[in-house]
Amino acid sequence: MKPLSPDMFAPECPSNLTPFRIGDKWAGLVVLCLEEGPRRFTELRVPLRGVTSKVLTETLRALERDGMITRTAYDETPPRVEYELTPLGRTLFEPMEACREWAAKHLPELVAAREAYPA
Amino acid sequence: MKPLSPDMFAPECPSNLTPFRIGDKWAGLVVLCLEEGPRRFTELRVPLRGVTSKVLTETLRALERDGMITRTAYDETPPRVEYELTPLGRTLFEPMEACREWAAKHLPELVAAREAYPA
Repeated sequence: MKPLSPDMFAPECPSNLTPFRIGDKWAGLVVLCLEEGPRRFTELRVPLRGVTSKVLTETLRALERDGMITRTAYDETPPRVEYELTPLGRTLFEPMEACREWAAKHLPELVAAREAYPA
Repeated sequence: MKPLSPDMFAPECPSNLTPFRIGDKWAGLVVLCLEEGPRRFTELRVPLRGVTSKVLTETLRALERDGMITRTAYDETPPRVEYELTPLGRTLFEPMEACREWAAKHLPELVAAREAYPA
């Protein structure tokens, strides 16, 4: 077994950018909410109970910045703003599905371990 | 397109437990560090530059609590403590590999979007 190396995870490696976004709790849920089509901010807040306006705004902006969603403002009264997955954003479903499959298969073991762990 | 439902992500659903652990930046890196075999705390700190003792301790405890790693203290002088993946912990490599493949394929698009985004 070889020793672990200090440059195993170089901070400048672009793959360090990824886990933040895919791994982020709210970002993943937002992506799931947009699967069927574009949604408005207030629609997203329905299933995302517990998210504050501030955090949801930041999450949407981060996803937009990373090219995962678009934000479209329609010149209507009252103004309408919609968020929609880009083709790049839709590619997230593949790794997310792998995580979902993992959970479907192994989550009971995780829960059992957690319950057995001394407080 | 049907409206989003308030119980789409029930807080009591056990799958809400998962993203924290798999998605956690340091937890994922620790799992990768343990792939070849058991490691000591000080060994882990070599590639995990930037992690504080406190955060690494918390990360290891969370992984242990969830049944992903074992912590073994050997009665030696000086004392030796090793962390090792459990069979359950090793099942994480499959979804992590799906994320790695996603990154290998799509990360340039994410980086390009991020660079093009107005500051």
